[in-house]
This record gives sequence, structure tokens and C-alpha cells, in this order.
Amino acid sequence: MTLGRNDIVKQLNHIFKPSSVAVIGASNSPGKWGYNMFNRPLVTGFRGALYPVNLREADIQGIPSYSSVLDIPGDVELAVISVPAPAAVEVMGECVEKGVRGAVVITAGFAELGEEGKALQQQLLAVARQGNIRFLGPNCMGLYSAAGRLNLCFQQTPRRGGISFITQSGTFGMFLAESAARKGYGIEKVMSIGNQTDLSAADYLEYLGKDPNTTAIVMYIEGIIEGRRFFNVAREVIREKPIIVYKGGRTAVGARATLSHTASLAGDDAIFEALCKQVGFIRAYEAMHTFEMAEALVSQPLPKGRRVAVISGGGGYCVATADACGSLGLELPELDPDAQAAIQAELAPHAPPPRNPVDLAGGRGSSFTVARIAEKLASLPYIDGIITSAPIGRWGRGDALTATREALDAVEVMAAIPGKYGKPLILSMARANFPGSVTYDVLHGARIPSYDTPEESARAFWALARYAEVRRELEAETDQERASKVVLLH
Amino acid sequence: MTLGRNDIVKQLNHIFKPSSVAVIGASNSPGKWGYNMFNRPLVTGFRGALYPVNLREADIQGIPSYSSVLDIPGDVELAVISVPAPAAVEVMGECVEKGVRGAVVITAGFAELGEEGKALQQQLLAVARQGNIRFLGPNCMGLYSAAGRLNLCFQQTPRRGGISFITQSGTFGMFLAESAARKGYGIEKVMSIGNQTDLSAADYLEYLGKDPNTTAIVMYIEGIIEGRRFFNVAREVIREKPIIVYKGGRTAVGARATLSHTASLAGDDAIFEALCKQVGFIRAYEAMHTFEMAEALVSQPLPKGRRVAVISGGGGYCVATADACGSLGLELPELDPDAQAAIQAELAPHAPPPRNPVDLAGGRGSSFTVARIAEKLASLPYIDGIITSAPIGRWGRGDALTATREALDAVEVMAAIPGKYGKPLILSMARANFPGSVTYDVLHGARIPSYDTPEESARAFWALARYAEVRRELEAETDQERASKVVLLH
Repeated sequence: MTLGRNDIVKQLNHIFKPSSVAVIGASNSPGKWGYNMFNRPLVTGFRGALYPVNLREADIQGIPSYSSVLDIPGDVELAVISVPAPAAVEVMGECVEKGVRGAVVITAGFAELGEEGKALQQQLLAVARQGNIRFLGPNCMGLYSAAGRLNLCFQQTPRRGGISFITQSGTFGMFLAESAARKGYGIEKVMSIGNQTDLSAADYLEYLGKDPNTTAIVMYIEGIIEGRRFFNVAREVIREKPIIVYKGGRTAVGARATLSHTASLAGDDAIFEALCKQVGFIRAYEAMHTFEMAEALVSQPLPKGRRVAVISGGGGYCVATADACGSLGLELPELDPDAQAAIQAELAPHAPPPRNPVDLAGGRGSSFTVARIAEKLASLPYIDGIITSAPIGRWGRGDALTATREALDAVEVMAAIPGKYGKPLILSMARANFPGSVTYDVLHGARIPSYDTPEESARAFWALARYAEVRRELEAETDQERASKVVLLH
Repeated sequence: MTLGRNDIVKQLNHIFKPSSVAVIGASNSPGKWGYNMFNRPLVTGFRGALYPVNLREADIQGIPSYSSVLDIPGDVELAVISVPAPAAVEVMGECVEKGVRGAVVITAGFAELGEEGKALQQQLLAVARQGNIRFLGPNCMGLYSAAGRLNLCFQQTPRRGGISFITQSGTFGMFLAESAARKGYGIEKVMSIGNQTDLSAADYLEYLGKDPNTTAIVMYIEGIIEGRRFFNVAREVIREKPIIVYKGGRTAVGARATLSHTASLAGDDAIFEALCKQVGFIRAYEAMHTFEMAEALVSQPLPKGRRVAVISGGGGYCVATADACGSLGLELPELDPDAQAAIQAELAPHAPPPRNPVDLAGGRGSSFTVARIAEKLASLPYIDGIITSAPIGRWGRGDALTATREALDAVEVMAAIPGKYGKPLILSMARANFPGSVTYDVLHGARIPSYDTPEESARAFWALARYAEVRRELEAETDQERASKVVLLH
């Protein structure tokens, strides 16, 4: 019996939210896969039962070990398999016998090595199907699940947030995920999907579409299997959640490399580009842009349009941010006279009438200057959101304690803007300008996304505006249009 | 008498390599400009005489202060002026009387505020010219000079290196310089050129062209004054040193912002783009790309062509790096059978024949694997340089001490490649993959440039290849062509 797809949530919850995990091939040798696969959930606090399985060792990392999954006294919901390829099929058979419900097959040496490996992979699939075990991999680097408190991927548990990541590449995918975690982006799930022998990208996409903790999906892909289903699933998911895609192989030299790597036929990039537009993917042309854009998409309300107001602590910031916005087709509307007057009241008396970008170089020096200007801009009907690189530190004439408290009050006003006005707020260059500042921490804690450069900030706003457009297009579709487009995909 | 330009080096050395500095308007109040301008050279080790001047205070930051520059007993070569605008002219007059040779006018409130400020600025210039004082600013954020051991800009002294930076924007320029310093790039000089009342971008460019410590020049500009001279100077400088330019105002919204900021008429970007090509500037479209590219240009030999070999620790790295190279017009030549065989000897016996990118996923596990493959690739006549994201950590079967020593030996072999083969070597994603590793430190210490993403690495290689092309074009020019092109510029 093969499994149906209607119960994808139930099936994949065995993998992403298991109550018990056995790591088969767990090791005591640091640097080995079997070491990491047991050590990471061990030290990052997996809450369920965690069993090491090893043929020879009595203890793994201080925990009593079993020679087979069959020897484990309790139930095992998920098996993480990290044994040599020839042994993996037998181990999968024992998992079936044990009543395991899901598996992560780390082991490499299958279809990626040619015909012999392909045959072994088919055996693995056949055994798993017999026992109704759905599995991630093989030839993958595992998963991370914040909801499941299960970490097979990260050195340190990342900040929690709504981004989930499907990656066809193991090492590079892990590099991207680690980079995103270090930048403080909020991550819900990561899955290194490997050879997609059982579950495919379309399955994970469908699962994440129904996952209440996932609010944006990032994908690294090189090729698409089950293309028709993949794109149809994506279209449905995009009605509710953005999908940000980086596709390897968009150039001739890159395409040659995908063939070696995942045996993916990259195809004509113009066709993929057109598909992205039709389906509504947010496409990234540099790999880390995916997570940058996703961080804004999981935290900020969608803007009504592309009209940005920029607040800045200096003329060059204004220029660079305006250029970055302009080159992405974002607009910076001129301010009306009333708004100009209200903002000018916050600036030095001799300052010229403020424009958009608003340059605070002549600010009066109160912590509330930026917050009040941001609120004013957010209240304008012709402004859809704000990018600010203005200082958010202690300003003012009082003593240090008074100034700090005033600054904290001011950033709390700023942090409330997205909720109060339903418009996105993006911090630009704030981390670099205010490393370790308490005011930055308040804004970061309130999930105001923060970027290192004007260009990253503009791309984040563009992603919000673009996804809002995609959503509006999808909502305006009639049922007939919707049905015809799905058919058109192939 | 106005000063001639032939002695630009002598004149600007008074500013960038002074033996004595007076900070006029030095302050005891942290956060004030006059505080930073005195504190930074004080705590970062300026080697010459350093005098605070303040009308009211007896001591500044623990150092006895003078009420006027005229009261200072010794010579003053450079005056840093940070007093209110109306007082600046008088202070400049005192500097003339004192025999000061150069000045940095931090003070704002001149031409950037309109007609009245313009008149004041003309007075400032007239007084300085009378006394043969050349000056940076006004309305600027000072300078950094590694050769002069003079730091008015940075919180911490950056790593020394050949990059010098001319910035028309103060706050944003300082943000970029600080970001570059944090990334570990090597910096020689920074100058925030402000209103360019006396010295202009062309003068600084000419000076840096003749500066033995500067090997690449980064510029943030919004508009060009003395356009003809600027471009002619640039053309001459580019024969010896690359100039990497980020120009604010390339879009309509950005151009509007430059008008508010530096009163620069940005002009048609297509014209500037054509000028860049004609003059040979390396143009950056995101601000931080300037420093990224410069870091490779100051440390690596120029490649003969655009043919890159990529070494990588995984398939996704291969694909993303190949795509990044391909999208910039770099080539990844296929390897010849002999090279394939030599590289295969380093890989696992069952690994498929290596291609370009070389994927080390099946490496044998010696620290020397990457080094030997890099050497082999560098020796190939059809390879112009290398980008590697392969692991450079401890590998191998020995004990930890043996493995570490072997790894250190291996990276020393790698570090020697650019010198030995005259071809650039670029580390990709190494910092993130090996934070704090001793092997990374060896490569960083040997000035092998290191980047966070595949796209940054590819852009760095592109900049090297592009500058090599510019140099070849300039060297092939006849004298007649050279003269005619200079005229054509205006």
C-alpha cells in the first residue's frame, strides 16, 4: 500500500514533531555525522525521548546505547539514520518492524552515485513504503523544527520566527541557514531534502503551507521534480504565505554545475522566470537575499502599494536608500505641505522644509524626534511604509538615566507603528550604527526587521510590496481563471 | 597668492602626515564633535604633538588646553577646526598667523545652508589662501591616515592595507568605512571631503595617485566639480591604481536626494556609465561592493583573463558560485584530462572525474587536499585565478595536534599561491564556515581576501579581471590616442 497525500500534515508531523527519536548510527567521534545528529538534539534541548543506536558502543555521549532500534523499550516515532548506505536498507527494515512512523536518512551513497546507488535507493523506498514510513533524504543534512524542538542542523538554536526553509543543497543550504541565524532572523523549520526519494519539494511545500508556525517559505532549488504538482501546490500556498526562491543553475556555467550536483536539468532560465511571475514566487538573485526578504515578510504587515517614506540620519543615507528603492521600482512620494510642517516642527528651526527622504541631520536632539516623524509619516494616506536609518539612541539634554529612559519610551512608540497603522517599518543600518544598544534591542525584540545596508532594506520593502501585489492579483481571480491557470502550468 | 597644484603631495602631506595637530574646539563632552576629534587621535596613538584648544576649559580629557592656537608654544602643522561656523573664519585667521600648514574644517553651516553660508565659506577660503593653508571640508567628518597615524574617524584603528577612501558624504561615508573596517579590510586613508571649498575630489585623487601606501581608491560621490580635471586625473591614476566608484543619484529618486544633500546635479546616469567605461572606473551598484572589490584589488595579482577555477566543499556552493561568476561574464573552463587525473588522485577513489567547479564532497580527508588541488589549478595555463569555498580546517586521521599542524602547513601552501603563480586566490564563505579557526587566521594574515557569500567572491574576481582589462587597454594606447581621449572627455 502506498500512502495517500491527503494526510500530509499527519505524516510529516511524525518527522517534524516527533515525541521520540532514535539516532541510528549515533557516534562518540566528534566530526562524524552520527556524532552531530545525536549531539545537536541532545545539547539543544529536544523534549521527547532520545535514543542512541550503535552496534558497538555501550554509551553514546554519556547516554546508554542500543545495538538496534528493535532493542529500544519505548515507542520510536522518528528514526534518524546515519549508517553506511549498504546497511541503511536493513536499518529501515528494522524501523518498519519497530513501528517507526517517520525517518530522516542522512546517509549518502544512493542515486547521486549512479545506477547501483539508484537500485539501493529503490530498495530503501520499497521497504519504507511497506511500513508506511515517510522519509526525508537520503543524502541530506537533516532538519530543524522549532515547533518540534528538534535540532539536527544548527550549532546554536536560532531565534524563533516564521521562516521555514526547504533546501535541495545540503552544505550550502546549511551555510545559508546558519548565516540567517547569525543575522538574528527568526526561523521555524529547516529541511535538507536530499535525493527526494520519498517526499519531494512539493510535499514539504504542501506541509509548510498548512503549518501554523510557518509564515514565509524560503527555497533553494536546482531543479523541480513532479513539476505540475509542485507549481500547483505553490500557487495555493502563495495565497496565504509568500515563497521566496533562489534557483541554482540560472546561468550556463551554473546549469552545468547543477547537473553534476543534483542531476537537475536547469532548463532555460527565461522559462523559470516566467513561471515565477505566473505562480507568484518572490525570486532572489543572490542566495542570502532570500532570508533577508523573508525576515520582513514574517514580521511586517503588507503595504498597500510601493510608496515608501525614508527617514535618515544623514544625506548620504538618504541618497543611497533612495537609489536602492528607485532601482527596484519603489516610489518616494513628495510630502504635502501639512506633513512638511508637522515634521519641520520636530527639526531645528532653521532646517529647510523636509522632503522624502526626511534628513534628520538638523534634528532637535530629542529621542522622540524619530518616533514622532515616523508616526506622522505612517499616518499619511499616500505612504505605504517606512524605511529608517535614523539614530535611535539616547538624545536630549537630561542626565544619562533620563535620556536612556526617554529613548526606550521613544523606540517603544516606534515598535508599535506597524501594528497601529498596518504599515511596515524597516530599520536600515541600525545594527551597525548601534551595536549592543538597548534601544536597538527593543526594536529587534518587537520584530522590527533590521538590515546592514540600504540595498538590503530596499529589497525587503520590495519583497513586501511585491507579495502584496501577488496576493491582490490572486484574490481578484475568478474561479474559472484560477482553474485555467493551474492547467496552463503544464 | 593662490597655491599651485604641482606640489599637491607636499601640501596634502601637511594634512595627512602632520607632525603636530591642534584640535580647535576640543571638548570634554562625550558625543560632541569636538570631543571625538580630540579623543580619537588621543586614544588611538597619534605619534606627534597633540594640542587641545578651548576657550573656557583648562584641561581637555586630561590634557592641558590652550585658549587659542596662538598660545601653543610649539609649531602646529595641522589644525582640526570644530567651532561654530561664525567663529571658524576668525580661527582660520589665527591659524594663518600661527603658521599652520593645513586644516580640517569639521564645522558645518556653510554653503550647504544657502547664500549667507556661501559668503561665509568664501571668507574662510580667502583667509586660508592668504596664509597658504589648504583645507579639507568644511562640513565634513575628518580623516584617517594610517601612514600619518592620525585617526579622526574610526572607533577603533582598522587593519592596515592599501585601500583609500574619498567620500562626499560624511555620515554614510563613515558608516561604509566602519563596515569595511569591521569586515577586516585593510585601510590606508579616509577623507570626508565635505563642501570641497578649497581642495576638491580631483586634488585628493591626484594625491592618492601619488601616495605610495595607497594601492586602490574607493569613492562615494554624488556629483563632480571640476569635471574635466577630475576625469583627466582619474585616467592617469587608473594607469597605476584602480578606482572603484559608487555614485549616489543614479535613479530619479536618488538624484532628487543628491540635490538636497550636496546640491549635486546627478545628471543622466547613462552618461556617467559611459564615462566610467571610457575612463576605466570600476563601478559599484551597491555601496559596500566598493570596499569588497577593493580588498581583492589591494591584495591579489591581476588575472590575465576571466577564466576562474572554483573549488568547493559541496555541490550547492559549486552551483551558486558558478552562477555568480556566470552572471558577471566570468568563465569556468572545463579541465583537461591530465588536470582531471591529477585532481582525482586527491579525491576518494570512487569519486567521479572532477570538473570545474571542483567539488570536494568526496575528498580523501587530508588537510593538503585543498592546497594541492589549488596549486594544480593555479599551474594550469588556461586558469587565471581561483575562488575556493572548500574547508581549510583540520582534516586527517592523526591526533589533534598532528592534524592542526598539518592543516597549518597546508594553508601556508595555499597562502603562497598568489605570489608563486601570479594568480589571484579568493576565499569564499570561509569566515562563516571557520569562525575563529587558526587556519583562517593564517590566510587572512597572508592577505588572502575572504568573503561571506559566493556573489561577493565572484564580484571581487570580476573587479580584478575588469581592472586588468582596463590596464591592458590603457597600455595599448598610443600617445596620440591618449591625448585625444583626454580632450574628448569634455
